[in-house]
Amino acid sequence: MRLSTYFLPTLKQTPAEAQIVSHRLMLRAGMIRQSSAGIYSWLPLGLRVLKRIERIVREEMDAAGCHEVLMPTIQPADLWRESGRYDDYGPEMLRIKDRHERDMLYGPTNEEQITEIFRGAVKSYRDLPRNLYHIQWKFRDEVRPRFGVMRGREFLMKDAYSFDVDYAGAKRSYNRMFVAYLRTFARMGLKAVPMRADTGPIGGDLSHEFVILADTGESAVYCHPALLAHDVLAADIDYRGDLEPVVEEWTRHYAATDDKHDPGSCPVPADELVTARGIEVGHIFYFATKYSEPMGCAVTTADGDSAPVHQGSYGIGISRLAGAIIEASHDEDGIIWPDSVAPFAVGLINLKSGDPACDTAAGDLYAKLLAAGVEVLYDDRDERAGSKFANMDLIGVPWQLVVGPRGLKQGVVELKRRATGECHELSVDAALSRLVG
Amino acid sequence: MRLSTYFLPTLKQTPAEAQIVSHRLMLRAGMIRQSSAGIYSWLPLGLRVLKRIERIVREEMDAAGCHEVLMPTIQPADLWRESGRYDDYGPEMLRIKDRHERDMLYGPTNEEQITEIFRGAVKSYRDLPRNLYHIQWKFRDEVRPRFGVMRGREFLMKDAYSFDVDYAGAKRSYNRMFVAYLRTFARMGLKAVPMRADTGPIGGDLSHEFVILADTGESAVYCHPALLAHDVLAADIDYRGDLEPVVEEWTRHYAATDDKHDPGSCPVPADELVTARGIEVGHIFYFATKYSEPMGCAVTTADGDSAPVHQGSYGIGISRLAGAIIEASHDEDGIIWPDSVAPFAVGLINLKSGDPACDTAAGDLYAKLLAAGVEVLYDDRDERAGSKFANMDLIGVPWQLVVGPRGLKQGVVELKRRATGECHELSVDAALSRLVG
Repeated sequence: MRLSTYFLPTLKQTPAEAQIVSHRLMLRAGMIRQSSAGIYSWLPLGLRVLKRIERIVREEMDAAGCHEVLMPTIQPADLWRESGRYDDYGPEMLRIKDRHERDMLYGPTNEEQITEIFRGAVKSYRDLPRNLYHIQWKFRDEVRPRFGVMRGREFLMKDAYSFDVDYAGAKRSYNRMFVAYLRTFARMGLKAVPMRADTGPIGGDLSHEFVILADTGESAVYCHPALLAHDVLAADIDYRGDLEPVVEEWTRHYAATDDKHDPGSCPVPADELVTARGIEVGHIFYFATKYSEPMGCAVTTADGDSAPVHQGSYGIGISRLAGAIIEASHDEDGIIWPDSVAPFAVGLINLKSGDPACDTAAGDLYAKLLAAGVEVLYDDRDERAGSKFANMDLIGVPWQLVVGPRGLKQGVVELKRRATGECHELSVDAALSRLVG
Repeated sequence: MRLSTYFLPTLKQTPAEAQIVSHRLMLRAGMIRQSSAGIYSWLPLGLRVLKRIERIVREEMDAAGCHEVLMPTIQPADLWRESGRYDDYGPEMLRIKDRHERDMLYGPTNEEQITEIFRGAVKSYRDLPRNLYHIQWKFRDEVRPRFGVMRGREFLMKDAYSFDVDYAGAKRSYNRMFVAYLRTFARMGLKAVPMRADTGPIGGDLSHEFVILADTGESAVYCHPALLAHDVLAADIDYRGDLEPVVEEWTRHYAATDDKHDPGSCPVPADELVTARGIEVGHIFYFATKYSEPMGCAVTTADGDSAPVHQGSYGIGISRLAGAIIEASHDEDGIIWPDSVAPFAVGLINLKSGDPACDTAAGDLYAKLLAAGVEVLYDDRDERAGSKFANMDLIGVPWQLVVGPRGLKQGVVELKRRATGECHELSVDAALSRLVG
């Protein structure tokens, strides 16, 4: 992409309304613009990141055997009356009347809707287990939306729903999601720690929040150091096999958010305990027959009976992750994108646009990188070098490739790694082979 | 995908509520389920088609130099008060009050929102032209929603908006979209005819509807036969070049929808005139400074003045297209997907699941096709052969590959082209090389 024809309205000034670093940087880097309180438009650079996050989530859900569907944003209130939640849900639910005065709502979540779809389609235990997910915009009318996309009103979420014939099956489904979540966040360059969460009236221990570590995270978290040493991506995961040992390995160590942590009863010695800041980005939950019973979602069992299905739900905040990743990865100059979610792999800077040698060399590099399938943002604008460097640091592209008149005379370009600041002079060919890999 | 673990709730009965063939077939093929009047959930098979359509639209928009953004579904009413449309828009607009009693709405279209984004970002003619598009769910509260996804209330639309410094620039932007639309529909296997549409108070001739031909289309259309002979995909299009000759070639012939057609004044002789049925799937429109003037979206011009930008908008009904393609391509047995939008490329039928020879041969073909990147739906269920054939015809996968015990004894499998019914016995290797091609 040539910056001269792109739509990247970066800001020099830090917007006054932004209280946290991800919100400030997303506005400054031209990723988002506010539409109204807690509601944002995603500009081209931000949308590229959002789509990369979405893709990783989708790939890991598919790998775990889930099937993608897409439910609408507007739901009928009657569906929520079946489960009893229409009256229970507070003012966070956006309630709507259509032109025929029918009660509708903008879905804050989809348990009722997926249960309705499933009960109309599946009648036998033979068609279980199933796990259906969708990636769709939700609305929660927060009383005081803030922190940009980290706590917006309209937000993009992946929510999955599992259907099993009994608790044992539901536990296996839960384990698959547990492992898929670890893999998903690891692929985004994040350190995620599962933390036991409340199960409320459902009871049991099948509820975990996934908290990623970030220096500027929203709350304090405490955990055993072993949890930071696990590498789930290195493990060879077979989703059809028994995942209990993996889940056991990740849950047997202490991990607690601020409100659960009790220094007095914490089993980890104080000098070993990891104290950090974290951001919740996912939540998995087994809720048994909470919706299937009142909504009549049952299957015939192997012995000929009929039984309500056992369900779980599994959420990942996709738009929230765009902010959370920045909280976990930035410096005073701007964003530092992990490679897997970066909007572009390479930022190509032409230090002297208009200079024939620079234009030719940079144009040639640009064409070759594109031809090799590398996503490049090419700053071909007529701007000062300092402004181009600052801009590229701000938007956080992982590699910066700098073409200038002095280097070209010696046959070299400069390659900088954004995360470390490491900088090398290389021949054009060496730089190319480094980036094309 | 193995059908035994997929989520594909096909229906044997034709749903009584469906009046048109695409609605009936989408319900029967397990593509969609109604949530409430005019609002649908997309099940896995339907979502695959929707995403393929979306991808073709996106690729052609990107090729034409547009930039993708994503605006939210919920907009503030104040934005529409700036343009004057909040009071003008009828009951089709879904009006909402949030918890603070602020007037909001579910966007039926996005002229105001994109103009707000643009006026805050671009100040100089040097940053023009630009074309920004998004693919987002819209809501129009139709009084009597019907025809399934062809006239739903919540629907997925691609809408693009061009920004130019003057009419001449806007005309070039319009031409790019004109050509991109022709290419987009052609890639979906559709015959699209641009037809001049009303421009209302804007005047001029820059408004075209794109109507695709379908035997069961919603309205009659009339056109010169030359329009059906053009092949836009064969042409080498350079979007930076002058597209006026291409647009001229497509607009100089007679083409009119039923309400515009006047047999008395039609310039095409009756024996040459093509009479067909059509479905509107796209609309492009130049609207000058209709929004930029009241909303203060202006740029400095080359001679130092300030001028409101000239705008156009360009819509494609993405969810509508899923239905429209079926209207254009089906028979009495079911859907016939064009290859480019088919949910799977190949339907693999194991005629005798449980038979070791059949299971081995079909499993092996399945693995090899997947390894070659071919998307396969493998019917590995324990069902009657007749039911498997009928099911595969219904969902309309372009190629059917049939593995049965009798053929295997002779070392052959059967390959059937859904569109023509042509059927050949081939060796396993020959079938593979035909499909992997």
